[in-house]
This record gives sequence, structure tokens and C-alpha cells, in this order.
Amino acid sequence: MVDVTDVEEAARRLDGVSVRTPLLQNFELDQMAGGKVLIKPECLQVTGSFKIRGAYNRLRQLTAEQASNGVVAWSSGNHAQGVAAAGSMLGIRTTIVMPSDAPKAKLENTKRLGGEVITYDRYTGDRESIARQIAAERNAALVPSYDHEHIIAGQGTVGLELAEDANSLGMPPDQVLIPCGGGGLSSGCALAIKSRLPDTRVYAVEPADFDDTARSFQCGERVRIDDSARSICDSLQTSTPGALTFDINRHLLSGVLTVTDAEVRSAIRFAFRNLKLVVEPGGAVALAAVLSGKLDTKGKTTAIVLSGGNIDLELFAEIQAEPK
Amino acid sequence: MVDVTDVEEAARRLDGVSVRTPLLQNFELDQMAGGKVLIKPECLQVTGSFKIRGAYNRLRQLTAEQASNGVVAWSSGNHAQGVAAAGSMLGIRTTIVMPSDAPKAKLENTKRLGGEVITYDRYTGDRESIARQIAAERNAALVPSYDHEHIIAGQGTVGLELAEDANSLGMPPDQVLIPCGGGGLSSGCALAIKSRLPDTRVYAVEPADFDDTARSFQCGERVRIDDSARSICDSLQTSTPGALTFDINRHLLSGVLTVTDAEVRSAIRFAFRNLKLVVEPGGAVALAAVLSGKLDTKGKTTAIVLSGGNIDLELFAEIQAEPK
Repeated sequence: MVDVTDVEEAARRLDGVSVRTPLLQNFELDQMAGGKVLIKPECLQVTGSFKIRGAYNRLRQLTAEQASNGVVAWSSGNHAQGVAAAGSMLGIRTTIVMPSDAPKAKLENTKRLGGEVITYDRYTGDRESIARQIAAERNAALVPSYDHEHIIAGQGTVGLELAEDANSLGMPPDQVLIPCGGGGLSSGCALAIKSRLPDTRVYAVEPADFDDTARSFQCGERVRIDDSARSICDSLQTSTPGALTFDINRHLLSGVLTVTDAEVRSAIRFAFRNLKLVVEPGGAVALAAVLSGKLDTKGKTTAIVLSGGNIDLELFAEIQAEPK
Repeated sequence: MVDVTDVEEAARRLDGVSVRTPLLQNFELDQMAGGKVLIKPECLQVTGSFKIRGAYNRLRQLTAEQASNGVVAWSSGNHAQGVAAAGSMLGIRTTIVMPSDAPKAKLENTKRLGGEVITYDRYTGDRESIARQIAAERNAALVPSYDHEHIIAGQGTVGLELAEDANSLGMPPDQVLIPCGGGGLSSGCALAIKSRLPDTRVYAVEPADFDDTARSFQCGERVRIDDSARSICDSLQTSTPGALTFDINRHLLSGVLTVTDAEVRSAIRFAFRNLKLVVEPGGAVALAAVLSGKLDTKGKTTAIVLSGGNIDLELFAEIQAEPK
């Protein structure tokens, strides 16, 4: 079972590999929230998202034989770049199955970082079976994008840094909001944050149409959402929570919030105009939850994770051109 | 005479007011430079540029009587926002003379932060005489944008943080590149950096058409450039160096580099695509100097300051849409 000591070990492995992203504050965001907001910008992380943390932590723990056979992963793009970069750093061959409609920047970056990319149709293909077949042919290890102890522990280093740095600032948060797709980031962060700050409430934030974790919370067990769901948040399109991640999240999270695509677009505009940060849709859901008042921030200290910044220019420009 | 103890005192005044911006690193930038590059992103600073540092340090040291009369400043936009925000924090009335063609974001933000804005024509009006007249009428103190000891000391805190954080990382830079308009940031940073890291070379970077500091270096005295000069770098359009700033810079800088508008536009694209940062033209000149090979970065550790991120969407989108 993964616990906070695994997160602490991951942090030692990642020393000098991932960036210790800062905790930022913004005058206008504080005013809008009516309280203090601490911003953890993982869009400034190596490869443009937090995913290098879990991927490197997994690849670093492969046996020599496993490493020599290479690894296979599937991903909409951020995990793909994390796996490709970690493979290049460690000299491990990486093959990643990606949806053909993934953002161009993510497809190109994954190749540029040294990954072999195989594309499939997001809505008709089964990326998992494609990846498993390739892995079986090559006797290669799979690198899941969230439901693995090493992945969860690696992503949890975001929460460990957040808790430590907030304490150093003398501003332990009342609540922390974390973007949630399969739940790797939220479960890892929850482990770290609840260990360091037991009274802090941790929330996952999902796109309204990919609310599988929210619905699973309501049912008390993992449920799968409809295949017809669509969202601007390409990095959070999972249809059911992970088994490991859900087991952690249901014990440690105080709840799950959801935000609409319109709220996400508005948050991306706010990040450009006020934070001077480039944030991708899935990376902006926690900011969107604060800006649209999905929970009470008045007089409180709220921390949010901006989990990634890999967005195509066309979409970014289109969103910025919309009225406020 | 301003020295490093003034910078250290400014740092204490600014504690809890300005953000201690991080030192970032980027895999691809390191590869392009053939060495290590440390990035100090002051676009993430309160008001979107470093200018809050000097403005607050100046306003905080006014006498009670001076404070009660309010202050007057002139600025193309970033100093304007810094003065307005510092005034709001300290309860001091601020009036700022700004060019009518300043970026809309800068004009709007200055008003929103509580400043009274008076516009003039950048190429025909004399902002200094307009500001002096208002100040005389109101018996108000002037807040110069660079040529004042308190301003220089405040901006120098950027260099102090940079030197301290680079040392903590075990990566003292061989060279530091700093955007230069009137020279407040470069002179303040040079004081701090040469005090902490005497062997580090410090360079100012200017737009090719506003190379007044470079020309003044060549002549050994302050020279004024032609009024016909134009540049995309609205925040670096000064026609002659400050007296105080030039006196510091000519003793402490190892040289002055210049970059073209095309090199600046390319750097803004790089910052969006790879760094996930929104950088304005004047804020991107040091990055542009590294990317265009204006000095040798191979095998070296180079630190750069990204001094601001206040750019209008229209220009940002236009620049991003250009081919690489």
C-alpha cells in the first residue's frame, strides 16, 4: 500500500530532475476570492506538467532487465511527455499510445523528447489493449498513467512541496484544490498533505462532463460514465477512477467539485491576463473552481494546483479572444 | 551614494509585499544554450513586472507630509502599475503620466490599481514637464522611474534574490543578462550580484534601436539617441541612460548587448511554447540575447531576468501566429 513515506522517497529520487515549482500569490485573485490563494504552477514543470514526477519515479525503479526491454504507456499527452523525458534521462526506450486528436503540441513534444508515438482514435479505439499488445510483443513493462503506486507517490511530491512551502510562508491552507482525471495527482497529494497538515481539507476538481470521481463518491464505489462525454479538458478525460487512486481518495478527500467548459475557458483567460501563465484546460479546473465560487474562499487560505500548460496556440488564441 | 546595503534594506521593506520569484530551468533552453540557463521570471511578480519593488521602496520612505500630498510619476506602463499598487498599499494618492499609445492592459491596470492616469503623445509631448507641472501645483513628490537611489535599491532586490537562490542551488552563474531601459534594474542588480558573486559578469541588454546605454559605454559618457527610434519594446524606450544608473553600470557591467525586434518576437514565442510564461517585448530581451547567441553560453551557467509580462492580447496573438 502506498503511503507518505513512498512520496518522501519519490521526492529524493526527483531531486535535481523535477523543478520545485514555487507557490505564487496574486493580488487580484485574492481580492476575487475574498481570502488568500496560493498557486502551485506545475505548468512551469519540466515537460510543462506534473507528469514527469510520476513517470520518472516509476522508470527509476525498474530492474535492469525491465529497463533494457523498454516501456510502453498510453496517454492523452502529458503523461506521454513525462514518460518520454524520463526515458531519455534514464536511457530507456519508450513507446506511447496517444489519441490522434491529442493537442499537436503534445504529440510533437513527445516525439521530440525521444518517445515513439503510436496514435489511435480516442472515441473508437481501445488504447489499453493496443498498449498491452505492444508490451506483450516486446516483453516491455507498462507505465500506467495513474493507477500505480510509483506513479501516485511521484505525483504526490507536488502536495509535499505545497505543504512544506505553505508552512514556510506561515500560511497553511484551509483547503487545497487539485485537478482530477484518473486520480493519480489528487490521491498522491492527499497522502502528502494530510500527513503534513491533518486539518487541511483536500478536494478533487473534475470537468462537469467527466465527473466519474464525483459520481463514484456519491455511490460509494467506482462507477463508469457514459462514452458520449466530451470536454475541453483533454488531459482529464478518464471514464472511471483508478482502483488504487479511488481507494485513497475516498478516505482522504473532503469532496469532489466540478466545473464547466465555460468556467475553464474563463480561468485560462484570467491566468493569461493576471497570472502571466499559460495554462491548459485540464490544468485550469482548480482555478476555475475558485473563480466561479464552487466553494467558500472568504477569509480562508486556499491552495490550488495548476497542473499543466500544454495547449495549442489556436485554442489558446480562440479562448483569449472571447469576451471576459 | 546607493550601495548593496540599500538593496538589503529594500529587501526587508519588500518582505511580504513583492513575491520572491523563483529561479526556473528548462530542458530545451539548456540544450539550445549548450549550458545551464537560470530564469528569473519577474512577469510573475505582483503587477506583472519588477517595478513594484522600486516604487514601493520609494513610497515607503516618504515623510508623512510628503505621503499626504500624494505622488506623481511618468511611465510607459510598468512603473505606472508599480506606483499605483504601492500607493494603494500605503494609502498614498498617485497620479501617473502615461503615453496615449501605451499597451491597453497597462493603462487599464494602472487605473484599476488605483492610479489617476493622464495621457500624452509619446513622440511629441514631454512627459517629464507635464509631470513636473502637476507635482508643482500639488506640492507632490515625484517618483522617477529609474534615476533615484530608492528606485535602484528596490529593483536591485531582483539581483539579490537571484544571487542567493543560485548559490542555494549550487549554481552561481558565470554571467547574468538584465533588460535595460533607463538602467534602474540593471544597476541595482549589478550592485547586488557583484557584492555576492564578484566573479560573475553582468550584462545589460537593450533593443537595437534604443541602444543608448551601449553607445554611452562606447563614448564613456551619457549620450542621447535619435528621436526617430522605434521598437516593439515599449517598456525600454528611453533615449538616454540615467545619471546615477549609468555611473553604477559603467563601473560594474561587463558590457551591453542589443537584440532586434525579430529576435524579441522569437523569444516571446519560445516563452509561450516552452516556458509556459507570458512575457512582454521589453521583458524578453535577455532571453532573446541567449536564443540568438549574442554571447557565449556553451558550458556556462547563464542567468536571465524576464522583467515583465504586460502585453496586449492582440500583439501576443499576432506574434504567436508567426512562423518559428
